[in-house]
Amino acid sequence: MTVRVCVVGCGAIGSLYAAHLATLDDVEVWAVDVSAPHVAAIEAHGLRVTGRADFTAPVHARTDAADVPPCDLGIVATKAAHTRDAVAACATVFADAAVASVQNGLGNEEVLAELVPRVIRGTILPAGAVTEPGVVRFDAQGDTWLGPFEPAPAATEEVALLASLLTRAGLRTHALADARGPQWDKVVFNSATSPLAALTGLPVGPVCEDPALRAQVDALVAEALQVCAALGIATSADPAALVAEAIEVAHDHRPSMLQDVLARRPTEIDWLNGGIAAQGRLAGVPTPRHDAMVALVRGLERSWSLPQEH
Amino acid sequence: MTVRVCVVGCGAIGSLYAAHLATLDDVEVWAVDVSAPHVAAIEAHGLRVTGRADFTAPVHARTDAADVPPCDLGIVATKAAHTRDAVAACATVFADAAVASVQNGLGNEEVLAELVPRVIRGTILPAGAVTEPGVVRFDAQGDTWLGPFEPAPAATEEVALLASLLTRAGLRTHALADARGPQWDKVVFNSATSPLAALTGLPVGPVCEDPALRAQVDALVAEALQVCAALGIATSADPAALVAEAIEVAHDHRPSMLQDVLARRPTEIDWLNGGIAAQGRLAGVPTPRHDAMVALVRGLERSWSLPQEH
Repeated sequence: MTVRVCVVGCGAIGSLYAAHLATLDDVEVWAVDVSAPHVAAIEAHGLRVTGRADFTAPVHARTDAADVPPCDLGIVATKAAHTRDAVAACATVFADAAVASVQNGLGNEEVLAELVPRVIRGTILPAGAVTEPGVVRFDAQGDTWLGPFEPAPAATEEVALLASLLTRAGLRTHALADARGPQWDKVVFNSATSPLAALTGLPVGPVCEDPALRAQVDALVAEALQVCAALGIATSADPAALVAEAIEVAHDHRPSMLQDVLARRPTEIDWLNGGIAAQGRLAGVPTPRHDAMVALVRGLERSWSLPQEH
Repeated sequence: MTVRVCVVGCGAIGSLYAAHLATLDDVEVWAVDVSAPHVAAIEAHGLRVTGRADFTAPVHARTDAADVPPCDLGIVATKAAHTRDAVAACATVFADAAVASVQNGLGNEEVLAELVPRVIRGTILPAGAVTEPGVVRFDAQGDTWLGPFEPAPAATEEVALLASLLTRAGLRTHALADARGPQWDKVVFNSATSPLAALTGLPVGPVCEDPALRAQVDALVAEALQVCAALGIATSADPAALVAEAIEVAHDHRPSMLQDVLARRPTEIDWLNGGIAAQGRLAGVPTPRHDAMVALVRGLERSWSLPQEH
């Protein structure tokens, strides 16, 4: 039996997941992306992975989801702001599918649950970049965690199937009954460092090494963990260890939020610090420091549409 | 009797105060500035004021304070970071002078007190810009408040003399026994708005109109007023009225901290939010929000010396 998977949003992450899955004989991979050159290159030559791996795999790519057949599984990898439009276009593709979000932040699964029958909560660590149409550079390896999204859960078997396919394809994936812990591990760290990097222009290492900024990191972490505790979510990562690791292995890394700011693109602040703040409101836990980060980064985004300095 | 006044730092504010005082027959004004073209133009043609006033006044200008005779009064208008070096160079000029700071923020008078015999605490509202060598544009009128700096106070008569000279010259000035209130009125408002403008790139109006940023403004004000209360300082301005006024009359104004950031110059964050935080530590009042502003703006300054984005 062939499993048909549709990857929605074929930037760095979507491309990495599509290409790896397409190496399996029993998987047929379809990719939907807005970039016509990327789609055309994938259709013509396959999707090529460089960097940490080196292979080319056959992927069906389309700009219009209407050209994609119904699929068994979905992986949504758009920027969070594009989830609704991108997945709404896939109504027939996902009419009877289990669909995973591998996006940043909190709140993506909630949108999926309005649009597809069964949802998988996903968290990933791999990173990369599309270097030219049809080519994705695999920059950092790391695990993936999947679990049913509670309000509209995928079946345990569906979660296990997607996890086993990804693992066989070379992306080690864990199927969990409750995948909120890994999701918050990542969100807490990202929310505690990304806006500080975005607002200062400093990479992760200098943010975490400066005592005054590190105090802000620690305070943001502590505030987020109070929300976790109130929601009964068991995080497993030690934030101090994540910070030490970031200084060690990602010292000069510019988080995607800083990259977005440098390129004057909308950031994912609403799904990171804004997601924590929203969950805090649900749980009755104040999040003044995350609120401040949201206010500042959204203000920064708004400044780009003002007349330039005279 | 002729009163001899030396103005140290002849940027916009120093130039405005020097030029106004030089219109008085009984005042001899000397100005010290690092800009050789500005000094040369003032010496050659006098110091010209445009904008809200239109006159040219004779001012002695020098780049080297060693060429300035001993003076009765001093006005220090350098950026806060340059106070120590600039005033130390004026040791003979100010050997028996009462010297006022009209600089931004908190902590300038403390530096003056290490270098000159008697110190005046000053707070000003006028604003302007040096538009070409020898010319300053007078952009905004406003009052000046002077009072003795408690640990090294100028005599009441000296404070009154400088106030009366400035008022006669067209810059309305109040001589007070305790000038801390007006100083904190200005510092509290500036510290609550300038770093938010500097970090987001938004002018004052948009910062104060956005509900999320306005909540940050209000929280920074509240934290600073707790420090005031602990120090027994009676502020008089209503912060909400200052915010309303800023939206009304200074909507598109970029605070000097934002101008500094846009020009990649060191900001005065250490004398604004950092000054409030320092006073908070003395008073035993925590200032986490001002600490966060200091950490972010100093991080932003530090990013300018990193290798550029690749």
